[in-house]
Amino acid sequence: MPTFRYNRTIHFSDTDAAGVVFFARYLSIAHEAYEEALGANGILLAEFFSDNGVVIPITRSEASYLRPLHAGEKICVDVTPVQSGPHSYTLDTTIWKIGPPEKKAAVIQTEHVCITSTDRKKIDLPSELTGWIDAD
Amino acid sequence: MPTFRYNRTIHFSDTDAAGVVFFARYLSIAHEAYEEALGANGILLAEFFSDNGVVIPITRSEASYLRPLHAGEKICVDVTPVQSGPHSYTLDTTIWKIGPPEKKAAVIQTEHVCITSTDRKKIDLPSELTGWIDAD
Amino acid sequence: MPTFRYNRTIHFSDTDAAGVVFFARYLSIAHEAYEEALGANGILLAEFFSDNGVVIPITRSEASYLRPLHAGEKICVDVTPVQSGPHSYTLDTTIWKIGPPEKKAAVIQTEHVCITSTDRKKIDLPSELTGWIDAD
Amino acid sequence: MPTFRYNRTIHFSDTDAAGVVFFARYLSIAHEAYEEALGANGILLAEFFSDNGVVIPITRSEASYLRPLHAGEKICVDVTPVQSGPHSYTLDTTIWKIGPPEKKAAVIQTEHVCITSTDRKKIDLPSELTGWIDAD
Repeated sequence: MPTFRYNRTIHFSDTDAAGVVFFARYLSIAHEAYEEALGANGILLAEFFSDNGVVIPITRSEASYLRPLHAGEKICVDVTPVQSGPHSYTLDTTIWKIGPPEKKAAVIQTEHVCITSTDRKKIDLPSELTGWIDAD
Repeated sequence: MPTFRYNRTIHFSDTDAAGVVFFARYLSIAHEAYEEALGANGILLAEFFSDNGVVIPITRSEASYLRPLHAGEKICVDVTPVQSGPHSYTLDTTIWKIGPPEKKAAVIQTEHVCITSTDRKKIDLPSELTGWIDAD
Repeated sequence: MPTFRYNRTIHFSDTDAAGVVFFARYLSIAHEAYEEALGANGILLAEFFSDNGVVIPITRSEASYLRPLHAGEKICVDVTPVQSGPHSYTLDTTIWKIGPPEKKAAVIQTEHVCITSTDRKKIDLPSELTGWIDAD
Repeated sequence: MPTFRYNRTIHFSDTDAAGVVFFARYLSIAHEAYEEALGANGILLAEFFSDNGVVIPITRSEASYLRPLHAGEKICVDVTPVQSGPHSYTLDTTIWKIGPPEKKAAVIQTEHVCITSTDRKKIDLPSELTGWIDAD
């Protein structure tokens, strides 16, 4: 259950007319962190999908939005994968507004299920992924 | 607890390289339905916020992604508000892929809390909103 | 050179912290109008691409942003295709803020070139597209 | 006319069902580079606007899309400001796919005009901005 930390700045395009990050963008940012974590483990999501006949859609998400974020603010995003079954894993993501003081801006959980791209049947997680999830 | 139905087509900009709607976009689409429901009840979210010194951030979301959606597909979105306290309400949103047969594509729940825009203290929901939520 | 009109409301997710539509979103909106115009002519962009081994990337865009647009405002978008060569066409798009009085919000031009999806060589426009572009 | 270089990875949320970055996202990416360039010069766009009663909308954009970009690819973005009048400046932006070999993916030009936020009259560029634009 290795935690990966991703750093990012809030962009104008993340915000809406209320002056802060649009709620759905927190999930996009969490997904960026996930992609970076995979990349840091030698897994390129794009190639991975096209090469293996598997897709790993997100089947569920939960998010608590704790604090507004503004354009220009620096955040860091911690993402931790946890295997939840032979075909699935959960990502626990926390978005922090960088301080001092550091403040928790959002907590997000997403569920990912591995299926075949053709008939969408559940299949075991590929070893590249379990390698990442089980690493210390 | 009036249900509002919003119709929409899936756009290319909703999709990602997996060929289907990016998961966070389901939440954006749910928010569009919410805005349209407010508008149909004479409430313009943009003006409402700037005129009243209140903001109604989303504090929590849950979503189940049940079915992939592709560019060009027609969807309808049912949104039902339920008051959950003096300062808050929940929106229950269902995204349907229009058929035949009609198929449930996602179920989304968001929690909205009414606060002052300056010191972010909880305040009672404005009457325009309770008027909408309580309507039959 | 048929002009297609697309109606739409500005959503919160189109805006940024300046309170108005983010400039790049005008181009997304223009693309939505293009997709709707194709759909109205029986062409589903998604299937079209996957069925034919052709892709029609946008190679160039120009946009004049004339007027800010706010969440909740109603717009209409006029899109007119003009064939610019055997392999390409231009879309002239005008975004109007619906009145009264109606006001021009943006003028956008995009260039589209038809190529094979494998080796990215220019090929003649498919008849479905020339049928749309040449229609009166 | 200082050139600022911004590094970034292409995210899934940048792409569309054609498998590559959606054309309008190139402009969003160019804007991110602009924001980072301002930030590196001590200018926080968000505060800058709210503190000064000025806004600097983009009035025009031109973009040539030269090469598709895929999720996971590394890019760098060079942005160079050029003052074009007492109230305006142009940003010349080039997006490179990092190599080897490095390849030009897009060339973008945007025009920015400084106006008052209330009556939208042209005003001289603030000294913070001319300080950035004139720096060597």
